Amino acid sequence: MFDDSSSRIVAGLREWIAGAPPGARLPSTRALVARYEASPVTVQKALRTLTAQGMVESRPGVGTFVRAVRVARPHDYGWQTAALGASNHRIPRLPAALQPVPNDVIALHSGYPDRELLPERLVRAAFGRAARTGALMGRPPPAGLPELQSWFAAELASATPAGVTPTAARDVVIIPGSQCGLSTAFRALVGAGRPLLMESPTYWGAILAAAQVGVQVIPVPSGFDGPDPDALARAFEQSGARAFYAQPSFAGPTGALWTPELAERVLDTVRRHGAFLIEDDSAHDFGMTADPRPVAAQDDGGHVVYLRSLSKSVSPAVRVAGLIVRGPARERILADAQAESMYVSGVLQAVALDVVSQPAWGTHLRRLRHQLKVRRDLLLASLREHAPGAQPEAVPRGGLNLWVRLPDATDLGRVVRECKSAGVIIGAGDEWFPAEPTGQFVRLVYAGPDPGSFPEGARVIGKALAKDNQS
Amino acid sequence: MFDDSSSRIVAGLREWIAGAPPGARLPSTRALVARYEASPVTVQKALRTLTAQGMVESRPGVGTFVRAVRVARPHDYGWQTAALGASNHRIPRLPAALQPVPNDVIALHSGYPDRELLPERLVRAAFGRAARTGALMGRPPPAGLPELQSWFAAELASATPAGVTPTAARDVVIIPGSQCGLSTAFRALVGAGRPLLMESPTYWGAILAAAQVGVQVIPVPSGFDGPDPDALARAFEQSGARAFYAQPSFAGPTGALWTPELAERVLDTVRRHGAFLIEDDSAHDFGMTADPRPVAAQDDGGHVVYLRSLSKSVSPAVRVAGLIVRGPARERILADAQAESMYVSGVLQAVALDVVSQPAWGTHLRRLRHQLKVRRDLLLASLREHAPGAQPEAVPRGGLNLWVRLPDATDLGRVVRECKSAGVIIGAGDEWFPAEPTGQFVRLVYAGPDPGSFPEGARVIGKALAKDNQS
Repeated sequence: MFDDSSSRIVAGLREWIAGAPPGARLPSTRALVARYEASPVTVQKALRTLTAQGMVESRPGVGTFVRAVRVARPHDYGWQTAALGASNHRIPRLPAALQPVPNDVIALHSGYPDRELLPERLVRAAFGRAARTGALMGRPPPAGLPELQSWFAAELASATPAGVTPTAARDVVIIPGSQCGLSTAFRALVGAGRPLLMESPTYWGAILAAAQVGVQVIPVPSGFDGPDPDALARAFEQSGARAFYAQPSFAGPTGALWTPELAERVLDTVRRHGAFLIEDDSAHDFGMTADPRPVAAQDDGGHVVYLRSLSKSVSPAVRVAGLIVRGPARERILADAQAESMYVSGVLQAVALDVVSQPAWGTHLRRLRHQLKVRRDLLLASLREHAPGAQPEAVPRGGLNLWVRLPDATDLGRVVRECKSAGVIIGAGDEWFPAEPTGQFVRLVYAGPDPGSFPEGARVIGKALAKDNQS
Repeated sequence: MFDDSSSRIVAGLREWIAGAPPGARLPSTRALVARYEASPVTVQKALRTLTAQGMVESRPGVGTFVRAVRVARPHDYGWQTAALGASNHRIPRLPAALQPVPNDVIALHSGYPDRELLPERLVRAAFGRAARTGALMGRPPPAGLPELQSWFAAELASATPAGVTPTAARDVVIIPGSQCGLSTAFRALVGAGRPLLMESPTYWGAILAAAQVGVQVIPVPSGFDGPDPDALARAFEQSGARAFYAQPSFAGPTGALWTPELAERVLDTVRRHGAFLIEDDSAHDFGMTADPRPVAAQDDGGHVVYLRSLSKSVSPAVRVAGLIVRGPARERILADAQAESMYVSGVLQAVALDVVSQPAWGTHLRRLRHQLKVRRDLLLASLREHAPGAQPEAVPRGGLNLWVRLPDATDLGRVVRECKSAGVIIGAGDEWFPAEPTGQFVRLVYAGPDPGSFPEGARVIGKALAKDNQS
């Protein structure tokens, strides 16, 4: 992913080395400069990389030589089977959303926004500034940089109505990305073997974290209108669960945005059962035709634990999120976060704060919302025209994807495979269900690279669908 | 910690705001420029910070105003007590090593090297370069940047004798700091409720991670000569444990460096019991009069899981470590690491690789070793002169601290408190014992700020000690 001319030289020399005997001398720097039309600095960098990789060794004043390659014996690690034992709870494989794919495919699967949707200029400038401050070599407090805690608190406070005590900076725990936040919240508030209610379908990262922690997942049916409040109340009663994980604003994968009435009903239910709502607001910055509505802003009784990530909207390299939690639960969360990662890189925290404090951040978000809407509408139109069998459940008002229902007769696995071999990557809906899927769904992301390919992508999907549904 | 003139203005204005009524208008930018003798850009930055903190709101074209402060009601979060239940395994409080302290004390407690011992110039340049590459907005593969995997593998391979298959890049999993590596290794290889052997005393971060995961800790007596191999064999036999956590090179807190003979005996024991050695090589870069001796280099049977961190020697802001593990155990480790943190920031990985690939890194390490030795010797001499009752267990050949035994009659808590009130912060040895401490120890770090204060620090310790031992 980090192409530059030194990588090119490394690749070329690795090929050369593969065909050379151990101890062979590499061409001189001067010869390499000529062959690769690169500067001596670039050639030296390539040689340093090869040295670090153990491919060559340099003898100062003599030259650079191919290292004697040691033959690797094949090993049998069978003894580990007994040492490891059967896994208590199997962590699922990585879903399609994280699969790396070649550049030349039409990628409708990745849950991360394309680079052109990210504030690259702001992030670069922020790294430049952070590298000139104490953040570069400093160790921030375990709960995070006070200024960044303040920012997270103030953002949520700005949505808090009169009559509700707004959240304070001390309620915020900074964590290295929202995935850590999910693991920590599930571990600290629920714990292995204890019940956790989750929307179904829901964010696959939460399903992963739940499996890792080993909580007992209890699915609550959900859809474009959000979770069924009656089913939620029944699930609390029957399971004795003390926590419900949900995404009230532009939920993954359905795009649901809870109405204020639903938020109120869920809060009532949670309060009645002396339970937590673990609110994952990961799509906060991705509203298109509606603003996010954090349920946490309605609660000052410590019932809502609020997770707000910046990695997805700022940069995947800025793994920073805030967990807002009041009461003794905060101590549990902080103790777990510290035991897990000690503290979050001060540079990443300073960069996150810098980016979201710029006036240009607001401008960027407005432009982003517009771009997402244009992409969403283009993908919707492409499906209508070329894949009429693929029915979006609804037009989402925020988020990065459509949640699309396929005809019941569809062989989902075959469709996904056929699309893949035709160069179109889509995510089978199964991965978003904590239990069995309730229908044939695919998740189609409109925030990925090259929206110009949407019509062609839809055409391929339509063709694959046609096979199962010809009769 | 990030002092600049905009912070100064923020601090000044917060005071002003505290005395102003809600809705009051702030002085104009021009007036603030004059009052604080700062540039308009700096003043604007301060105002943006206050806005983000919810202290003020700006009305474009009108001015900036103190926000109406909402009164916070005190809350009782008693209901959470029932929801959280009793904690399965209590995570200990943060130890002295992580306590933030004022600048004017003599700090002999922190386990992190002082800023002047870190390669600040290299790190700054590396951040500058990384921010100009694809790492800035890219998402690296879950197991890490291939070039960085190669570097970790090559470093260990360079210590691997002929006849042992060297480790390969694919055996490396990049993780966000060594604390995550400990949690992940304990979770993936041992699991809650199952036995884990640990040296006693040992690194407090490992004790913390073991408590978080909820493993059953079985202490193995250890000291400057490393763990007692007979006690280790007995502990394996009696507990049925399948893993032993240890620091063979400059162990925390004792400074032990295992002899090749001890390494061989421990490896034999581990192999005989079909078990893992979880080798934490966190002091790898801190050899003074000896080089580290990774036990992992002696093993190609998958018995040694090797943890190598770069945060301590590169920068606390570069939270990057490598876990080297072969066989199916690698799959367990990778699955847990992904469920916990998904992937490690590409910028931090690129920075780590850049720093350790520079020729100047070698120069830095040589200088660092010399500086550490000078500091160690100064602290030893200071103790000999001013605190003869404080007896270092041995002269460590690497690491960041002395492990000092106090006379048996010492009231350790009183000594630590008295030193603190006299402005000298030291770590009570208790924190390094997974069970009861076996003697009166303190850990004295010579890698902290201002070695010039060591004689004064030793004088204060000597005075505090004298009280208990006058008779």
